Formats: sequence, C-alpha cells, structure tokens
Amino acid sequence: MQKIGAQKLLLPALTPTHLWKKTDRLNNVTELFKIQDRAQRQYILSPTHEESICSVMSTIGILSPKMLPLKLYQISNKWRDEIKPRFGFLRSREFMMKDLYTFDINLNNAQETYALVCNAYENIFKKIGITYIKSIGDPGLIGDSISHEYHYISDIGEDIVCICPSCQYSINKTICKESYCPKCKNAFNEKSAAEVGHTFLLNTKYTIPLEVKIKINNESIPLVMGCFGLGLSRIFTVMTELLSTKEELRWPKNLAPYTVCLIPPKAGSKEENKSQYVKEVMEILNQLNIDTILDDRTNLTIGKRFMHARITGFPYVIIIGKSIMNFPPLIEIHNINNSTNCKISLNDIPNYFNNEDIKI
Amino acid sequence: MQKIGAQKLLLPALTPTHLWKKTDRLNNVTELFKIQDRAQRQYILSPTHEESICSVMSTIGILSPKMLPLKLYQISNKWRDEIKPRFGFLRSREFMMKDLYTFDINLNNAQETYALVCNAYENIFKKIGITYIKSIGDPGLIGDSISHEYHYISDIGEDIVCICPSCQYSINKTICKESYCPKCKNAFNEKSAAEVGHTFLLNTKYTIPLEVKIKINNESIPLVMGCFGLGLSRIFTVMTELLSTKEELRWPKNLAPYTVCLIPPKAGSKEENKSQYVKEVMEILNQLNIDTILDDRTNLTIGKRFMHARITGFPYVIIIGKSIMNFPPLIEIHNINNSTNCKISLNDIPNYFNNEDIKI
Repeated sequence: MQKIGAQKLLLPALTPTHLWKKTDRLNNVTELFKIQDRAQRQYILSPTHEESICSVMSTIGILSPKMLPLKLYQISNKWRDEIKPRFGFLRSREFMMKDLYTFDINLNNAQETYALVCNAYENIFKKIGITYIKSIGDPGLIGDSISHEYHYISDIGEDIVCICPSCQYSINKTICKESYCPKCKNAFNEKSAAEVGHTFLLNTKYTIPLEVKIKINNESIPLVMGCFGLGLSRIFTVMTELLSTKEELRWPKNLAPYTVCLIPPKAGSKEENKSQYVKEVMEILNQLNIDTILDDRTNLTIGKRFMHARITGFPYVIIIGKSIMNFPPLIEIHNINNSTNCKISLNDIPNYFNNEDIKI
Repeated sequence: MQKIGAQKLLLPALTPTHLWKKTDRLNNVTELFKIQDRAQRQYILSPTHEESICSVMSTIGILSPKMLPLKLYQISNKWRDEIKPRFGFLRSREFMMKDLYTFDINLNNAQETYALVCNAYENIFKKIGITYIKSIGDPGLIGDSISHEYHYISDIGEDIVCICPSCQYSINKTICKESYCPKCKNAFNEKSAAEVGHTFLLNTKYTIPLEVKIKINNESIPLVMGCFGLGLSRIFTVMTELLSTKEELRWPKNLAPYTVCLIPPKAGSKEENKSQYVKEVMEILNQLNIDTILDDRTNLTIGKRFMHARITGFPYVIIIGKSIMNFPPLIEIHNINNSTNCKISLNDIPNYFNNEDIKI
C-alpha cells in the first residue's frame, strides 16, 4: 500500500442512514443491521464504506487537483445480517476486510489508478501463494460497469466462475451469457469458487449524489472513484481449507501466526543434556528473524508434541531428538506443508530457510 | 503483553443481550446501542466485553488448572451511546480500547495476576512519558470491590482526583469520603483529571452467572476474574492536548506516527546542489530505523515547510539549509517537543538520536 502511495485511515462502524438514502442503496441492500441512537437518529452497521468515505471527502475542505489521485484504505470489521451465515468466516455476520477507495479527476486517470491498485492486489495474492482466478465481475449493488473478482477455486465457494481452458479468460457465471470464451470460442470450464476480493471502477455513482467535487476553472466537477475490497476473513478461511489435511492445519508459510515450532528432547531422555543446542537453535532462528514457539512441555514425548504442532498449524517443526547425539549433531526439520523432512547440522539452518524463501 | 504471557484475540462487536441479562447489567447501563437481527434476536454494540469473554471461556471446553492464569487481550473498538459526546475522542461514541481479561483459580492467585498486569500497564504509561496518576478507583457498573484508575491531569478531564501532597496517595473524588489523606492526614489537593485506564479485580461477579468454572476433585468452582482497560483514543486525545502549543501539534516521541520530517533545500537555492546530503541523511536515518518523511515540496521555502512540519506534528525536524555549505557540512535538528535545536555534522546524527532515547 505504501508503494502505491495509499494512506491508511479508519472509518466509523456506524454510517448515518441518510447517506445511504442519497445513494439509493438503503432499501436495495437487504443485509443491513440497522440501529438508532438515543435521539432516534438512524444508522447502519457498515457492510461497506463508499458512502462513509465520500462523506469524509466532501467535508474535509476544498480539494486541489494536486492531491489527486487520492488512495485511502482501512483494515476493519464490516457487518452483514446474512440470511444464512455459514462455513465459519466464509459467510459470517461480522468479518474483516481491507478496503481501499480512490479518487481521480477524470475517468482516464481513474482507469490508470484502477490498473495500478489491481496490480498491487495481484501482488498480494501472489505472495499468499494460493492459486487465484481473476474474473470479470458482477458489479452487483456496489459497482458501476467495470469490476473484477478474485476467486479461490474451492467446493466451499458459493460462486461459479467460467474459465476458458485455453486463454484463462474468466468471468462470473451470473453475468456470463455465453457458454464459450468470447476470445477463443472454446467451451468454458465451470468451477466452484469463493470470492476473496472484488474491485470496482465506480465512476461517479457515489461522488455525484454525495457531492465529492473539485473546482477547476470555476466549474465544480465530481471526482471519479474506485473501490477495492480484500476479504481478509474469507482469505484465511479458504486458504486454510484448501491447504489443510485431516491431521494438519496448514497455513501459507508467509501468513502463519508462527513459522517454527521447536521441540526439545523429552525430560529424562539421553538427549536431554544437549540443551545447549536448544538455546543455540533458538538464537539462530532469532537472528534470521523467524518467529518461533518453543514447546517446552518436556514432560510430553516428542511424538505427542509433534502431533500437537501439526494440529496447531506451524509450517515448520524442528525436532531436537536422537540425531543431536551424532557427530556433528543434527536436527530434524519438517516442512509440514509439503510433507518433507531432513536432518541438517545447525550451521545449515540459515541456508535451509533462505531456500524456503520465508518473507516476514 | 508477551512478557506477561498474555494472548491476543478479537471478540465480536455484537454481544447477545441475553448474556447481559444474566449479569444484571442490561438495564443498569444506559449508554447501550441496541440492535436486532433479521430473526429478532437482540444484541448490543459492546461497550465492554466481560460477558463476551466469559461466554467464550464457558464454551471452549473443559478448563484445566494448568491453563491458569489465563490472560487474554484485544485491541478493538467499543461503542457507547453517550448523552454528550465531546472533546473529540475524549468522549466519543465509537472509541478504541485495549482490554485484557484474566482468569485465576482463586482470589489469592487473582491478586497476584492483578498486580502483575497493573505493573505492565504502568510500564506502558512510563514509556508514553506523560505524568500519570494511579488512583483508587470507582468500581462503577463494571467492578467488584478493588479497582484502580489511571489519570492524566488535565482541565479537559471529567474526573476529580484527590491527591495527597505528601505521600501521593490518590483516590477518585466520587468514592472519597474524607478531605484528608488516610495515611498522612494531610489535606488533599483536588485536580481535574481524564481517566485513561481502569483496572478491576472482579472476583466472581461475572464467572458465577456466566458459569466460567473449573472442576477440581469433582467440585465445580467459578474462576476469579480481573479486567484491565486502556483507553487508547483517550490517551491520544489527552496527551496531544497536554503537549501541544498553539503553533505545534506535539506527540510523545515514542508514539508519533512519524519521528522525523526531513526538509531539503528550496529549488533554485545555492544549497540545492548539495542534494547528495539529503540522500545521505535519509540513509543514516533508515539505518537507525527512524521513520522519516521527506518533504520534497522544494517549490516551497524552508520556512513554510518547517511551519507545516510543526503543525503536522513531527517530534523532530531536520533542515538541510545554509549550514550544509559549511565545512564540515552541518544540518539543523529541531526537537519540537522541548523547543531546542542544534547544528551537527552528519556523523553525529546516530549519537544525537541515541541520546534522545527513541524507542521504535
């Protein structure tokens, strides 16, 4: 977000209802939690923040062309009074979202900004590392004409995307009127998918009714807006659903809460007096900036703690077991996500993690 | 929080009303935002989370004594339908709080945990660096018998604290029945103060009605609870109110969004061709891990940008001005918070910031 010059803010959870009347969405969105305060003023618990950000923009004073494009984002909770909340965080009534709103002086600039932000979002999906599909999206009740959806292919998903097997052109089935790719004329493959991101070029849909304007040559013109949502709760739900096995909670290695679980020898074992190596491994991992949990419940067997580490969801488990008695002493490293393991000396730990391409 | 073994979570904004009925608070707290979902189930927008955390605790399965003390915290928004919202974030209807909840097996242990957490909170206040008062608190509608309040002395505060001028014993005036210190018998000083933190030893006030229990020798006993709130929005409001002047927004140096504003020479000035030093200063600050904004609006004079930097609220401003032509070249560093400045060579920058004791 910093690289593309976006600035962080936090919008209120409550949006005054009258703003949603102005954009004609109040009665069209059926999942709104409505609330009123002690003076009977009406609010909604915001499911999205287009009205709210426009209200900020129209009240911060005179906008200058030099301030544009403006890119404002937040990471915050949203609420939808879902008819059927299900699949944990896939469709929950309170969920976390990263939403970004952009403002430009004309449609041409807004299209450039749209491409820039979409590119940044694609970089985020690439870093997460789960295969994603970018589809032509259904603008729904938020958008104007142009929108794109980001999907994870998954049976727990509630969307169907049509994908061209040859050119990868992809479109949400709800807006797809043909059964074949418009470019290659190949028949589409249909896949169940979970929407984890959605970007919209909104044009002036919100900025006209909410009067987000700029003065140029004494003429007041509405700004051109874009909005860009990343469904954080959904990303977490679907990615762990896709990666995990019956025995193991698996996280993408760059998103796991902790990267390594370090399991020292059982109390009373021959290896127990090699505790200097536990300290040494900890220090090496600290120096590499790899966040590590030491499972010091040494009254439990290594096997039991290893099982716990796999259930808990560490991408890497390091065991200091029998091979620590070797010369040179060896540790066991398990890469849980691809079910591989190896025995290496302490000197080789930095090399091992460099090859694994851990990003903190 | 990590040092005292606390674990982070995020509780929902909405708490089911029936939990607040069980603890008899639903009709006693008048600032509740109430809401209902499509199935007419009642919720409140949580102003505090004792009921919510107890509900989690009573449903996570069998608790074992080995899990205790449990210390769980979140940093999240809370809501109060205030009669008179005022002073920006001092009394706003949506505000940010850091709240921590502890669970112990008996009162004795809970008292130890209470002291441990209070000590951690005092360390936080010491790091912020604004003089605070720890007073015997008014348990109000949250607490049981023991509570402590943390105050900043300020005229915008809505509390009055009684402070002994000799031993610094302090107590909230609302629960103070005497006009003199119970220890020294000195007459109290009374000060306007803003509450920025409040800690409570809750005993079993919530754990009995919400059935947060543990089984020991086949007997079910309720856990003993503590809760600890830090009013983040309030801390920000009062500390900037206390530090700032008419011309300058002043932040505590360890909490400012950015530490340094670097102002390079004006375009067209003699000093402009010394731009290699701008880059060099940036690199030195990056290496020191000091977050810096480069004000590259070189069409503006140094004076104008310096004024902007002071209004914006940077604790330090570095100006690359006339003295960069000296031999050796010198930069100007302004410590905004104590209105001092000096001219130093680039080599002395690390030393300067080491002496300033910046904590990132």
